[in-house]
Amino acid sequence: MIKTDILIIGAGPTGLFTVFEAGLLKLKCHLIDALAQPGGQLAEIYPKKPIYDIPGFPEVGAGELVDNLLEQGKQFQPGFTLGERAETIEKQEDGSFIVTTTKGTKHQAPVVAIAGGLGSFEPRKPVIPNIHEFEDKGVAYMIKDPEVYRDKKVVIAGGGDSALDWSIYLADIAKEVTLVHRRNEFRGALDSVEKVRELKMLGKINLITPAEVVGLGGVDELKEVVIEKNEEQISVEADAFIPLFGLSPKLGPISNWGLEIEKNAIVVDNSLDYQTNIPGVFAIGDVNTYPGKLKLILCGFHEATMMCQSAYKIINPGKRYVMKYTTVSGIDGFDGSRKEAEKAVVQAIE
Amino acid sequence: MIKTDILIIGAGPTGLFTVFEAGLLKLKCHLIDALAQPGGQLAEIYPKKPIYDIPGFPEVGAGELVDNLLEQGKQFQPGFTLGERAETIEKQEDGSFIVTTTKGTKHQAPVVAIAGGLGSFEPRKPVIPNIHEFEDKGVAYMIKDPEVYRDKKVVIAGGGDSALDWSIYLADIAKEVTLVHRRNEFRGALDSVEKVRELKMLGKINLITPAEVVGLGGVDELKEVVIEKNEEQISVEADAFIPLFGLSPKLGPISNWGLEIEKNAIVVDNSLDYQTNIPGVFAIGDVNTYPGKLKLILCGFHEATMMCQSAYKIINPGKRYVMKYTTVSGIDGFDGSRKEAEKAVVQAIE
Repeated sequence: MIKTDILIIGAGPTGLFTVFEAGLLKLKCHLIDALAQPGGQLAEIYPKKPIYDIPGFPEVGAGELVDNLLEQGKQFQPGFTLGERAETIEKQEDGSFIVTTTKGTKHQAPVVAIAGGLGSFEPRKPVIPNIHEFEDKGVAYMIKDPEVYRDKKVVIAGGGDSALDWSIYLADIAKEVTLVHRRNEFRGALDSVEKVRELKMLGKINLITPAEVVGLGGVDELKEVVIEKNEEQISVEADAFIPLFGLSPKLGPISNWGLEIEKNAIVVDNSLDYQTNIPGVFAIGDVNTYPGKLKLILCGFHEATMMCQSAYKIINPGKRYVMKYTTVSGIDGFDGSRKEAEKAVVQAIE
Repeated sequence: MIKTDILIIGAGPTGLFTVFEAGLLKLKCHLIDALAQPGGQLAEIYPKKPIYDIPGFPEVGAGELVDNLLEQGKQFQPGFTLGERAETIEKQEDGSFIVTTTKGTKHQAPVVAIAGGLGSFEPRKPVIPNIHEFEDKGVAYMIKDPEVYRDKKVVIAGGGDSALDWSIYLADIAKEVTLVHRRNEFRGALDSVEKVRELKMLGKINLITPAEVVGLGGVDELKEVVIEKNEEQISVEADAFIPLFGLSPKLGPISNWGLEIEKNAIVVDNSLDYQTNIPGVFAIGDVNTYPGKLKLILCGFHEATMMCQSAYKIINPGKRYVMKYTTVSGIDGFDGSRKEAEKAVVQAIE
């Protein structure tokens, strides 16, 4: 059982900044995220894209912002459970909560902060009648370990960066790569499009457009992919079919936690501390909703900070906290580090 | 008459960031500040001190943060009225406001955002019975133009950085510099203390401690400063007396604007947009108060952003604004500039 003060569901920018604000109040944090690395969407979907509306940064790369937030929180030694999705929450008699992940990891904390962003990103699946029968038997919606496809016959479907990039990558290691897209036009980085064009010329990628995968065949394991082009059906021998149609955010299991939900977001009390209808459970950042809500990272930072004040009161009932400015009082990290502004000397001049 | 969309009272970090958020909504801003340069406290009181709690900055110099915020807002071409204090506000029949400064400069806008921080910083004055008679006649509480003191006999009082630094500076250009402090110990940067010690040895600063200025003399103009040391009074010939006892924040004339005030701060509706009791007048950043209020720069950023949404609705009644993410849609500056993330190409591969 992992125990902490504030259990944060979601390691995006809001969750990461919570570590810092909680640390100033001497509260420890542990973060759970379904993705394999911290940073949420910023790290997973657009790490190289610039963001223009983070206060104090005329421009900052999404990945750079994540690195900065990790660095800012590091001194407060957060824990991480990554690559596992928070699945269930149970309130204990002592008022604390136990949150269990898909892989069965258990976490206990008196305060839970849901910083789940737009939710877990789940792959969009194509509508092929028997596709579910072949999941994990040749059909995959994301590529975790490309080595699985060495010397295999692979069919990839999609027209964006993921489809282009994985076709290029697998062209080198798979026995055969077939790329299927329902249009002739691909949308992606210029050099990816050009590379696919080149690999097609070299016969290393078998490109079929405009076309769609309409059927799958095989016994126990995938053996055949049926592709429809110009109203004709082509059968392609295949060990793997990988539709890369993008990720779609889903609130996921959190929607069964008994929280008040409105338009796929968690309703919170914005007049004080972004608490949900379950006392002790807060929702901060893009995952919450309230009158006038803006899904902006800078708002998540504020919400996290306000929430930490209430978390402090729950965890330290009756204790009074006097807020000090970091410029004035400096910062003591849990790792023994100390940062502070240079102090003035006091000296007599005789 | 200066006309704008959002008139911002106070050019500290919250006021400066408002320029950016308003700009995204195509609203123009004009800022009024009593200080001679933008940045508020950060620029005036602690430009070289580090701040640790700005999200995304493990550490940032206060002056550096101000520079970044100015850079971020520059593309939206804000106007500035600096070195003038906002004095009066008058509501017009068309619903707009006219704000007039101490120097009589008039500004008109449909929305006023008070981002006044802790208020105007006013000098702390020593208790000397007739000091008011000599104000601007030899007595000054801050030094605007040091050349005024060339070849003059100057008495400075105080024990902090300002008193030390100005004594050092004026030692070079004044005829005589006397530094009076009620303790032997000075509090300031180490090199300033050492420099004063050195100038004292050289006879360029006349140091009198522990002592206090207790009287002023002269007809029409200051001629004499009376200093008490060890219960004895010394009379020093002087053209100028400059007590540098620090700045104390005062809400100032804003407190007469008919706003609901609580504990020296303006009460706002934090459940929506930080509007005050006067519709169209908002208060954001350290100057406002609401349940759970934290006087943190990051909270001011959020409040400014929420306020801009309501400002948009006041300025564009009935018009609908669809928020777009800067990463997705880029930014069009009023100066004709455009920033955006690299777009994916759309190309056919035949």
